[in-house]
Amino acid sequence: MATELKNDRYLKALARKPVDCTPVWIMRQAGRYLPEYRETRARAGSFMELCRSAELACEVTLQPLERYDLDAAILFSDILTIPDAMDLGLKFVPGQGPVFERPVKTHADIKAIKRPDMISDLGYVMNAVSTIRKALNGRVPLIGFTGSPWTLATYMVEGGTTKDFAKVKGLVYSDPKAAHLLLDILADSVIDYLNAQIEAGAQSLMVFDTWGGVLAPHDYREFSLRYMQKIVDGVKRDREDGSYIPVVLFTKGGGQWAPLLADTGADGVGIDWTADAAVLRAELGDKVAMQGNLDPSVLYAPDEVIRREVKRVLDAFGPKPGHVFNLGHGIHQYVDPAKVKVLVDAVHELSRN
Amino acid sequence: MATELKNDRYLKALARKPVDCTPVWIMRQAGRYLPEYRETRARAGSFMELCRSAELACEVTLQPLERYDLDAAILFSDILTIPDAMDLGLKFVPGQGPVFERPVKTHADIKAIKRPDMISDLGYVMNAVSTIRKALNGRVPLIGFTGSPWTLATYMVEGGTTKDFAKVKGLVYSDPKAAHLLLDILADSVIDYLNAQIEAGAQSLMVFDTWGGVLAPHDYREFSLRYMQKIVDGVKRDREDGSYIPVVLFTKGGGQWAPLLADTGADGVGIDWTADAAVLRAELGDKVAMQGNLDPSVLYAPDEVIRREVKRVLDAFGPKPGHVFNLGHGIHQYVDPAKVKVLVDAVHELSRN
Repeated sequence: MATELKNDRYLKALARKPVDCTPVWIMRQAGRYLPEYRETRARAGSFMELCRSAELACEVTLQPLERYDLDAAILFSDILTIPDAMDLGLKFVPGQGPVFERPVKTHADIKAIKRPDMISDLGYVMNAVSTIRKALNGRVPLIGFTGSPWTLATYMVEGGTTKDFAKVKGLVYSDPKAAHLLLDILADSVIDYLNAQIEAGAQSLMVFDTWGGVLAPHDYREFSLRYMQKIVDGVKRDREDGSYIPVVLFTKGGGQWAPLLADTGADGVGIDWTADAAVLRAELGDKVAMQGNLDPSVLYAPDEVIRREVKRVLDAFGPKPGHVFNLGHGIHQYVDPAKVKVLVDAVHELSRN
Repeated sequence: MATELKNDRYLKALARKPVDCTPVWIMRQAGRYLPEYRETRARAGSFMELCRSAELACEVTLQPLERYDLDAAILFSDILTIPDAMDLGLKFVPGQGPVFERPVKTHADIKAIKRPDMISDLGYVMNAVSTIRKALNGRVPLIGFTGSPWTLATYMVEGGTTKDFAKVKGLVYSDPKAAHLLLDILADSVIDYLNAQIEAGAQSLMVFDTWGGVLAPHDYREFSLRYMQKIVDGVKRDREDGSYIPVVLFTKGGGQWAPLLADTGADGVGIDWTADAAVLRAELGDKVAMQGNLDPSVLYAPDEVIRREVKRVLDAFGPKPGHVFNLGHGIHQYVDPAKVKVLVDAVHELSRN
């Protein structure tokens, strides 16, 4: 599959093979900072309608590729498609973010969860994947993605976004069996989901563990890492056609756990900007590819500072194969799109020598 | 000064001397989880009026000591007293937190900042310190505190709380000279502030670097750590009466930087619950005392789980002198006050052997 790609830098880097220059993509690259995205988003009506329309999801996925020399496309979808398919009543409330009308509160609520069907419930995501893959026509690889079980569980139990994670941690501490049951159901659903994305045409996968970093080290191992291990083991990375689908794990705020993530057997580990890339690369060597880790706020800086900070990140990861350049978190809404061109071009130019 | 204390466990632990059991205090121990606090707060009118009244600030400072066997009291005040005294127009907006009407935006704004006078502008804090110290009457030591220069700067530049720190990082990247000038002014003011608190009767000091953890490692060194170093160097810890005022630095989300904080010469380093206490204690040895680090969410758990998790933290810090038990962050508003008794008693009981 990789052979038909016109640009396979991203997959080569994940395989720790030499590349002509460092590949780069940007978390949330199809997003609100782009005026053309906001135009399509307005046309779609709601955010979930944008996700549910394969044509519109494809349109916004390709938008940043028209502007920038990016080395990968990422499926446009929401992190909460799986909980949404579990009938918790997902709504997006302006200024408040995602809200579940029927959050998961008790062991009985968890037992009653229905494991989503990848065709009848989540077929719209697979349609988007195959539509985007076709439209890309081998230009760059397509990344599929999911939230981690722990991250999905936080939204399901809290009923939305939270600052202190009181409810989901309350569940973890007062009824760990119920928490594990929920995480097991989610891990199984995520495996189904990622395997279906591979069938539909995803050429690489990202697992976003957005909220693993709010856990104590032993709780991280037990309630987040363990279920990402299950996903790494359950995703069919070796395809019958001989292609290989690499998996990247990213725990925001989890730089200290990068060695544990590498031990799962994942192909890549993402780190945010608070992690010390040079130290981690020295420690992990060739074991795993690494993705990151520019502070998204650098995109508010003058062009020459962006270039300087790009160089700092490239130098930290070093010349050894296996670095995918990215921000340490999603691009902010108020970034000037012109700055992203400075960033992407700087990554290619400064890494070419 | 320490000799007249009836309970000096806290100061002994910070001096890395043996104690009969591990001292414990709780960040935000005088706070909204206590009904008696809410009653006093309602009587005061506004939050800042509560801070400005030495009598009421004293009343709420002592409230948790009546309920729990705590080993230290901490001055009740706000983290933003210094920026407030710089005439930025601090307001507390319900549901939104602190808001500055005149945030700092430009180099010119920073040059115009007036360094607060510790008597005319911040005398009310010193009155509170001396009033509380007198009321404590040697029962436990009194901790004074400040926000770190970086943390204060984030509020001053952002104009309030923020999720992405876009404005203050924009300043750091686009005009680092202006950022350093602001941080220098703040560090000088913090040094004045802490020395005045010592004169008024503070027996130990905490520097809360609440937002240092949002910085990349090199930015942390340059924009947060550097100014905490200045504070450690500028605070007069050795008093003429022979007493010694220990200083504890705490960067939330900064566990990886605990060794750097220890290198400043501070007496203690606080860590949050995401840090691995056992690893850090092994690395830092007897160089510095350490404070922490129970996840505040454990207080939502059944009593036996609280005791188990207290034991886990005690075991992680180990039997070596120099551990002050605390949460890894402020106590949550919705915690049942009865749970705090379980916690405090467990710390003393389980560490006594």
